[in-house]
Amino acid sequence: MKHRSRAEKTGLPPGSLVHVGERQVDEIALSLIDYNPERINTRELATVAEASACLRSDSLSWLNIVGLHNTRLLEEIGATFGIHPLVLEDILNTDQRPKVEVFDDFLFVVVKMMRPPSEGSDEIDVEQVSMIVSERFLITFQERPGDVFDSVRERLNAGKGRLRTAGADYLAHTLLDGIVDHYFLVLDHLAGQMDSIEETVLEQKDPQVSHRIHRLKHDLILVRKAVWPLRDMIGILLRDEPPPIKEDTLPFLRDLYEHTVHVVDTLDTYREMVSGLLEIHFSLVNYRMSEVMKVLTVIATIFIPLTFVAGIYGMNFAHMPELEWQWAYPAVLAVMLGIAGGLLAYFRVKRWI
Amino acid sequence: MKHRSRAEKTGLPPGSLVHVGERQVDEIALSLIDYNPERINTRELATVAEASACLRSDSLSWLNIVGLHNTRLLEEIGATFGIHPLVLEDILNTDQRPKVEVFDDFLFVVVKMMRPPSEGSDEIDVEQVSMIVSERFLITFQERPGDVFDSVRERLNAGKGRLRTAGADYLAHTLLDGIVDHYFLVLDHLAGQMDSIEETVLEQKDPQVSHRIHRLKHDLILVRKAVWPLRDMIGILLRDEPPPIKEDTLPFLRDLYEHTVHVVDTLDTYREMVSGLLEIHFSLVNYRMSEVMKVLTVIATIFIPLTFVAGIYGMNFAHMPELEWQWAYPAVLAVMLGIAGGLLAYFRVKRWI
Amino acid sequence: MKHRSRAEKTGLPPGSLVHVGERQVDEIALSLIDYNPERINTRELATVAEASACLRSDSLSWLNIVGLHNTRLLEEIGATFGIHPLVLEDILNTDQRPKVEVFDDFLFVVVKMMRPPSEGSDEIDVEQVSMIVSERFLITFQERPGDVFDSVRERLNAGKGRLRTAGADYLAHTLLDGIVDHYFLVLDHLAGQMDSIEETVLEQKDPQVSHRIHRLKHDLILVRKAVWPLRDMIGILLRDEPPPIKEDTLPFLRDLYEHTVHVVDTLDTYREMVSGLLEIHFSLVNYRMSEVMKVLTVIATIFIPLTFVAGIYGMNFAHMPELEWQWAYPAVLAVMLGIAGGLLAYFRVKRWI
Amino acid sequence: MKHRSRAEKTGLPPGSLVHVGERQVDEIALSLIDYNPERINTRELATVAEASACLRSDSLSWLNIVGLHNTRLLEEIGATFGIHPLVLEDILNTDQRPKVEVFDDFLFVVVKMMRPPSEGSDEIDVEQVSMIVSERFLITFQERPGDVFDSVRERLNAGKGRLRTAGADYLAHTLLDGIVDHYFLVLDHLAGQMDSIEETVLEQKDPQVSHRIHRLKHDLILVRKAVWPLRDMIGILLRDEPPPIKEDTLPFLRDLYEHTVHVVDTLDTYREMVSGLLEIHFSLVNYRMSEVMKVLTVIATIFIPLTFVAGIYGMNFAHMPELEWQWAYPAVLAVMLGIAGGLLAYFRVKRWI
Amino acid sequence: MKHRSRAEKTGLPPGSLVHVGERQVDEIALSLIDYNPERINTRELATVAEASACLRSDSLSWLNIVGLHNTRLLEEIGATFGIHPLVLEDILNTDQRPKVEVFDDFLFVVVKMMRPPSEGSDEIDVEQVSMIVSERFLITFQERPGDVFDSVRERLNAGKGRLRTAGADYLAHTLLDGIVDHYFLVLDHLAGQMDSIEETVLEQKDPQVSHRIHRLKHDLILVRKAVWPLRDMIGILLRDEPPPIKEDTLPFLRDLYEHTVHVVDTLDTYREMVSGLLEIHFSLVNYRMSEVMKVLTVIATIFIPLTFVAGIYGMNFAHMPELEWQWAYPAVLAVMLGIAGGLLAYFRVKRWI
Repeated sequence: MKHRSRAEKTGLPPGSLVHVGERQVDEIALSLIDYNPERINTRELATVAEASACLRSDSLSWLNIVGLHNTRLLEEIGATFGIHPLVLEDILNTDQRPKVEVFDDFLFVVVKMMRPPSEGSDEIDVEQVSMIVSERFLITFQERPGDVFDSVRERLNAGKGRLRTAGADYLAHTLLDGIVDHYFLVLDHLAGQMDSIEETVLEQKDPQVSHRIHRLKHDLILVRKAVWPLRDMIGILLRDEPPPIKEDTLPFLRDLYEHTVHVVDTLDTYREMVSGLLEIHFSLVNYRMSEVMKVLTVIATIFIPLTFVAGIYGMNFAHMPELEWQWAYPAVLAVMLGIAGGLLAYFRVKRWI
Repeated sequence: MKHRSRAEKTGLPPGSLVHVGERQVDEIALSLIDYNPERINTRELATVAEASACLRSDSLSWLNIVGLHNTRLLEEIGATFGIHPLVLEDILNTDQRPKVEVFDDFLFVVVKMMRPPSEGSDEIDVEQVSMIVSERFLITFQERPGDVFDSVRERLNAGKGRLRTAGADYLAHTLLDGIVDHYFLVLDHLAGQMDSIEETVLEQKDPQVSHRIHRLKHDLILVRKAVWPLRDMIGILLRDEPPPIKEDTLPFLRDLYEHTVHVVDTLDTYREMVSGLLEIHFSLVNYRMSEVMKVLTVIATIFIPLTFVAGIYGMNFAHMPELEWQWAYPAVLAVMLGIAGGLLAYFRVKRWI
Repeated sequence: MKHRSRAEKTGLPPGSLVHVGERQVDEIALSLIDYNPERINTRELATVAEASACLRSDSLSWLNIVGLHNTRLLEEIGATFGIHPLVLEDILNTDQRPKVEVFDDFLFVVVKMMRPPSEGSDEIDVEQVSMIVSERFLITFQERPGDVFDSVRERLNAGKGRLRTAGADYLAHTLLDGIVDHYFLVLDHLAGQMDSIEETVLEQKDPQVSHRIHRLKHDLILVRKAVWPLRDMIGILLRDEPPPIKEDTLPFLRDLYEHTVHVVDTLDTYREMVSGLLEIHFSLVNYRMSEVMKVLTVIATIFIPLTFVAGIYGMNFAHMPELEWQWAYPAVLAVMLGIAGGLLAYFRVKRWI
Repeated sequence: MKHRSRAEKTGLPPGSLVHVGERQVDEIALSLIDYNPERINTRELATVAEASACLRSDSLSWLNIVGLHNTRLLEEIGATFGIHPLVLEDILNTDQRPKVEVFDDFLFVVVKMMRPPSEGSDEIDVEQVSMIVSERFLITFQERPGDVFDSVRERLNAGKGRLRTAGADYLAHTLLDGIVDHYFLVLDHLAGQMDSIEETVLEQKDPQVSHRIHRLKHDLILVRKAVWPLRDMIGILLRDEPPPIKEDTLPFLRDLYEHTVHVVDTLDTYREMVSGLLEIHFSLVNYRMSEVMKVLTVIATIFIPLTFVAGIYGMNFAHMPELEWQWAYPAVLAVMLGIAGGLLAYFRVKRWI
Repeated sequence: MKHRSRAEKTGLPPGSLVHVGERQVDEIALSLIDYNPERINTRELATVAEASACLRSDSLSWLNIVGLHNTRLLEEIGATFGIHPLVLEDILNTDQRPKVEVFDDFLFVVVKMMRPPSEGSDEIDVEQVSMIVSERFLITFQERPGDVFDSVRERLNAGKGRLRTAGADYLAHTLLDGIVDHYFLVLDHLAGQMDSIEETVLEQKDPQVSHRIHRLKHDLILVRKAVWPLRDMIGILLRDEPPPIKEDTLPFLRDLYEHTVHVVDTLDTYREMVSGLLEIHFSLVNYRMSEVMKVLTVIATIFIPLTFVAGIYGMNFAHMPELEWQWAYPAVLAVMLGIAGGLLAYFRVKRWI
């Protein structure tokens, strides 16, 4: 999850089309699925003009655009489908907060599509998806190829269920549902991380565990930032029922709303747990240090005085009468034993050993 | 309290019946209690068809279904009792947030049944219970055999009190009441844990106390997550009085509401106290370490210089005039005593000893 | 403040009378104060029947019941005064959240009476008081003899002020006012504890100070839990003005409301300060430990190398030419002084000494 | 900021006049400023009767009363100006939460006047000021002589601006404005404290810095507690425009409201920063301790083994062949150097030195 | 970001013009841009009278005033353009909370203009900008030369887009938009700081990292304090649509609102992350210290007993039979090896090495 800078836009008038984000694809790809209950037609488009042709048909069109760096092409799309320049600007700016905006003849929706890290990476994969939902067409904008909508496409092709017969609003719901379903996959990934960190912390196995906790916390903050506005967003759709949303779709949206609440709830639970993990790690490191200190103190406190006594009788003074006594050596050893025993008893009383 | 993954549902259309959770029972068991003020009739059913027969009678039917893995059977139940596929989907998904949903002719309720850990375990036992509450029947769905409803069954059989004469809404309230009553048992269990941990912390008896605090915190977070939505849920029933709820039942629901608020309040109090416990543990470990350090420092600081003096006169230089002096040895001993006394006085002034 | 378990009630139907709490008195005592502006009559009752007699008079009756373990007697009272079984159940259950419930012909109020610890104890004394406030009588239920109402009784007997002339609602207000007045005594007690702990912390006098902070925090949490709902409760009375509450009493209730807000505010301030105390204690212990470590390090770092040098020349090798040199001994002493001086200078630069 | 106990009031009926707080002045002083656009008349009064005379005039009267211990005199004032006993009680009780109360013919306002510590003290000076604002007069009650209103008196005398021509509500606003202006002085004082503490913390100069942080935190909590309710209070005046408030005064009150919000905002910012300071202090002490430990460990770890080697060859066994070898001494020195070098290399690798 | 004191204003009547803040420019500069769709005219003014002349024209005038210390000139402006003295007072006081105030014929807006630190400084550059937005003119007040509006001036001159044709409300929006755009630059700067600190923390490279975290936290608090009220402010404009705001401008304001929410959201995310950084730093320092302690303890615990044994046989008693034994020396060496081995094994079991 990298930081995207919208700094390059500073000073431009509102509505200026500048792509904020990395260019992640060579060519912008336009693919169109055109369907009605009877037939379905999938194809790749070469020009925007082709898309506008489909617009006139009585079927429902889903135009999926992958790649955002070609601002000229997007302007053309804007002109063809009558999209406000401020909306186009938002589509191009991938550092956007998820939101829904209601216009006279379409809804504009921005969400974050997330997938757990793919093999070999450890970054959660985040991509901004924008949608224009109108009565007769749905346009989706993605940053790069690959999305979570394959199962939707399959269901469209299979032609079973409501999908082929319902309107663009239901299609939009299905896509959002697919995105939210993948949030659960991300939650699973995060839960897995958390469990593994928890084990590491409790068994004090890994010195790098703070780094891992930090990273997980970071991910949780960013995922929450992406999911949280979604809740309000769907709440607005439910409350206001703006034009393209039909009443039939409401129970499904309500279901989606519940899922989003569930995701946010779970994220909050995770955050609380992760905070607890750092505390517990800290407490365990500290406890352990205090144990180490006790061992050092017990050993040092016993032997330092004894070594001193030995040092006394190691001095080379000419006149040290004790040195000549017959039983001096065993007596000194006995004194040493006494000192050691006394200190051990003291430590035992203090419950250090 | 294990994590349940709804990941396996990703990509399926809404309303797809997939059992999320472990299969915890071999055969799905259907048991029916059919009663009116005059008579009561309890039996196990073999097929869904038998249940539908009862539906036509003028008595009140409570159908209890244990086991959720047989999706075909549940589809049959859905068809018989006219349950929306989205509801069936929620029943099967045991990773559900407690909620109430109002439909035209029934209420759909999801709650978490909790029991304190049984003998030999230390996991709070959580099970999802779903209810379909209609005017003439109540269907409950459980994950596995064993529940907290035995006292309700006894009271039904005994036939005393309102239970036999009141409607399905009162039966549903009684079941919820039984569930909330068991939350108090769980609270007692958690309070017991907390008291035992508190004692351990204050007396610094157990190195594993951080683990135990962590575990308790974890349990409190999860129990709260399960109880919290219940409050809103009953609040909705009280405010909207949806069809199957009769006015007579409202004071009882209000009572239940108070209990839920009490549980949540108590959980919050516990969480605050548990957070305090970790801090206090930490502070005590630290205090103790500082005491240990003081002992080490006092002993080392006194004896290290003395040992050095002894070392000086242990050197074998040919020309060390002091060594020959008559009173050198006692003089050195006196100097050592002076150093030790001085340092002790210094530590006394610093209030280290 | 002990934890009371309502676990024993699990599985009983709502409205079952079970006393939750310790039996704290041998016999239930019923005392009745019967008054109107002209005369006042105080006596102890032997049976509930006597109480019901008074009910028919045109004077105002305050029936005070001490002891809750005799459920049969309480059922009799319930029957005599027409109290709903759910209310009786709440009266018996001393693990109750403060609340007010509005019934057709009476108000039901539950509050916590608190007093600072008595001589020789260090537990805040908490007792649940329930009130039934009707147009013509007031019934109070206490757990054990002794309450904060003596000044109210005196004022009733003295017959001055509004008390004798106003209704049961004003009497109820006066009792609540007496209870809230005692909250200020409890606040004073807690403030005294806090000041004494603060002094101990800042002067680092007492190793047990963490225990005391923990205990104070605990008390603050529990007192707040008992006072907090009172605020909403009086707010409800002010907003809804339910029947027995007359308009004349409202300014007094408003006053009471302000007091409760003040108590809660002060408790919150205390909690913040107590949290700060643990942090400051912790910080001071840590600071002190770092000072101790510096002393140890300075002493050890200076003498350990010197002792090593002395050790070198204490070796008994046959061929150690230095040992024979004339000025070797003073030279070694000089070297040692140099090392010590260098290290001292280093520590001075590092600002350790 | 001392704690004031209202404990002495326990058990008294509402409306009992008891002065809570220290007696801070010998004699109660009554001073009256009587003015209309044409003339102004300032004098000290000996009796309350004199004040009541002025009441009948058509000019505006500001009666300022300093000292609250003479409850009899205050009763007289209450009787003369028709003030409710509950209000008088609140005036006498200096442990009051800032508030506004709307009565039929006057407003009752309680605020806390604050001034930064005077020379030689380090306590913020807090004094409760109560105001009775009516159409034709304003009464202010203070605890002791000296206030922040001198500039108001000067402006009154100068007779410029709105002050002489506007009503009692504008005078009240002006006094409140004077009080809030002094809050900014208190903020400046606190900011000064914070800057000085910050410097001390960052340079680790003063062992007593925890005490100072604690004290500042304490002051911030208490100032906030005094200012916070003011915001709501002025909000109520703005929203309800109770009788003595005229529409002309509203923009000025709105201005005052903004100032109060600004004070509360700033206090919150300060609190956050102060919390950060303790953390940073703690972190720095800890960092420093770890540095000290490293020095100790490096020195001890290098010399303890060397000293042991020297100890070996200081033993007096008869049969220690090495002692006789020609090159034993230089060889041992070389070994020692090797050990020291090896350890230094190890520490360098670990980046401890 | 320095603290500005409004203390010097204490005691002055409301509406007194006093400049709070540093005098940052020698001469007040007035520059006027006068435009309509056909032509544009930019010039520097010498007197306020010139400005008032322009007022009578039918073109739109943007008067930009740089420097606030000349209160007389500002009074003149106030008189010319009919600005309320309380507004002038707010303009002069640069310690102002961002706000919008609606007057009959103009809007008064206060915002904070922020820029990332310029080369060689590390202070975020904050300057208060006040705006008077009326139907026919816009006046902006700045503290010192240099602003973020150059791109707006260019666009005005270029004459493309809505800017030349729309009203003063759109010009005001454009200026606010320029300011908010620069907030993103400040966010980028803060994000850069955070990333660099994060790296430093995780690699434990820099002892001064606590200082840097403290500073960043400080900056985040202050930036948030400046941005937060902006959100409410634009919300008020959107909700109330006060006179100079035309409906055409609303979508642009909505866009601006979204940006502000985004800035606040991001700041909150940053603050959470920075808090985490200090914790992680702390935890790493502690972990490291515990590692250092282990090394010290292992070395000291092994060698201190050995040195003691060597010390024993270094004593000079006449009667120490062991000294004469043939194999005493190797035996002692073997015992020492045994002790060392035993301790090493013990440490291995304890997992310290």
